[in-house]
Amino acid sequence: MTKKIFPSWIAVDWGTSNLRLWAMDDTANILGSAESPLGMNAIAGDPKLSFEAVLIDLIEDWLGAAPAKLPVVICGMAGAKQGWLEAPYCDVPARPSDLAKGAVTPNVTDPRISVFILPGLCQRADPDVMRGEETQLVGFMAQNPDFAGWVCLPGTHSKWAHVSTGMIRGFRTYMSGEVFALLFQHSILRHSVDDTWDDASFADAVRKASEQPTAFLHSLFGVRAGALVAPVGASVAPGASVLSGTVIGAEIADVLGLLQPGENIALIGAGKLASLYQAALAVHGYRAALQDGAAITLSGLRQAHDTLISPPQET
Amino acid sequence: MTKKIFPSWIAVDWGTSNLRLWAMDDTANILGSAESPLGMNAIAGDPKLSFEAVLIDLIEDWLGAAPAKLPVVICGMAGAKQGWLEAPYCDVPARPSDLAKGAVTPNVTDPRISVFILPGLCQRADPDVMRGEETQLVGFMAQNPDFAGWVCLPGTHSKWAHVSTGMIRGFRTYMSGEVFALLFQHSILRHSVDDTWDDASFADAVRKASEQPTAFLHSLFGVRAGALVAPVGASVAPGASVLSGTVIGAEIADVLGLLQPGENIALIGAGKLASLYQAALAVHGYRAALQDGAAITLSGLRQAHDTLISPPQET
Repeated sequence: MTKKIFPSWIAVDWGTSNLRLWAMDDTANILGSAESPLGMNAIAGDPKLSFEAVLIDLIEDWLGAAPAKLPVVICGMAGAKQGWLEAPYCDVPARPSDLAKGAVTPNVTDPRISVFILPGLCQRADPDVMRGEETQLVGFMAQNPDFAGWVCLPGTHSKWAHVSTGMIRGFRTYMSGEVFALLFQHSILRHSVDDTWDDASFADAVRKASEQPTAFLHSLFGVRAGALVAPVGASVAPGASVLSGTVIGAEIADVLGLLQPGENIALIGAGKLASLYQAALAVHGYRAALQDGAAITLSGLRQAHDTLISPPQET
Repeated sequence: MTKKIFPSWIAVDWGTSNLRLWAMDDTANILGSAESPLGMNAIAGDPKLSFEAVLIDLIEDWLGAAPAKLPVVICGMAGAKQGWLEAPYCDVPARPSDLAKGAVTPNVTDPRISVFILPGLCQRADPDVMRGEETQLVGFMAQNPDFAGWVCLPGTHSKWAHVSTGMIRGFRTYMSGEVFALLFQHSILRHSVDDTWDDASFADAVRKASEQPTAFLHSLFGVRAGALVAPVGASVAPGASVLSGTVIGAEIADVLGLLQPGENIALIGAGKLASLYQAALAVHGYRAALQDGAAITLSGLRQAHDTLISPPQET
């Protein structure tokens, strides 16, 4: 029998293909957590499912007999056009409080909860969008209030955000993860890659991507040609390492070109992909510590919660 | 009943997925021609087929009772490792005569022919290879002996060769065509593209690729984000035009960065793809006339034939 918990609010990261929830007390302690595969796509694809019903099902045990409604603060795809209720994008430059103020409140039938869905960010000059990562940025900024530079969130579509003086000034999405996967699985380069990996070959490719930062579409072919022109008997750099270094290296070379003097680089994420970004940044002399994505997300949701429930005095 | 022809030699462009033959007389006239889907892959994949048998079958009618063996000059994948007989790559920088001298002569059982397979080109410093396109370059150089600059051969893997003073100095393969197809068909961008096309949007994307030449992996996401951030009711640039301009634009931006003062650009090819390269080059102020690929190939094969059969005096 599980111990009954009485959270003071619920934090939710509702993504495309899954969701995570945390039962929080008033002092940032996690009382409980849950995960579900019922992300936005699953709900949008099944007329028998609704966001509210999925949510209630997951938090039912945490809903006490408290007289006040339990606040539920949600980031991510629940706020997309195909989500629960569209939370229109907030334009950059944006402060964390701008994001909290942009939260929308869907009508709910259950009287025990009140729901806040946070908006994503959009950038109009150089068109770009994010939903979910902005809350990680808010969490990161709460923990690093003086940070100035670029924050990297690796992923299928990695995001780099330019942060300074407590504002998200702009950001760039890179399709590197998806491009790598397509080339690895479906292009002519699939004949040149396998499970073999070599850190030095990866680093060499990162370096070369920086030396020829405009040559990406050409450098890719080098993954294949490098093996074809190698002298008989010479060791050939493993194609997967070269391909990965070429793709991640091209992304990082572009960002480094935008870095201003005195600015830093931070890395949010975990696992193999984040480690590759860390290694690629190290090639360029940047030591970026990996910061756990889930903890950062929760920190961002808590910032939003605090702004929404007891707004601080601001000028 | 077809008129019997008596060629003095046979020109063959033997590719991966098809082959083309021409029956030639002594004065560069085409007496007849043939095509077949039996490219290298078809032959390599069918143990009942052989290069010689396929060739004889196609030219049987042209084999007269001449006392001398009929020369057959072949370029392309027949010289690949998986081809008829490997013709080892010739290193750049290379003269047209270097390529002819690198021809290999497979043993044939039919006494009526003698076969010459031309080598491809390889580049070791910045690894790259080509097989078949080098013969187009030779044909182009024969017709444009004073050309200095970059010759573009659009394709799934487009090739750009740096030519001056009658030499192929280096070259670059770009995977643009394949990357475009993968993104168009399999990536998240497939939701943002259709058959709609707009020349101005293509030109804008080419221009933007040149303004942000290192941002390719980011600019791709703009194909999707551009539609998401557009104001309600605003016209949205057709995604296919933007994607195509982004990819071809990135390739051209890289080559233009290598162009030296006084150097030119030439374009070999026909059809939709070559026209897009022509339009993209026009955005940058280059007027490149389209030169027919087949005629250029034949011209290159003739150069090789003349060198092989009656070598000119050279220093």
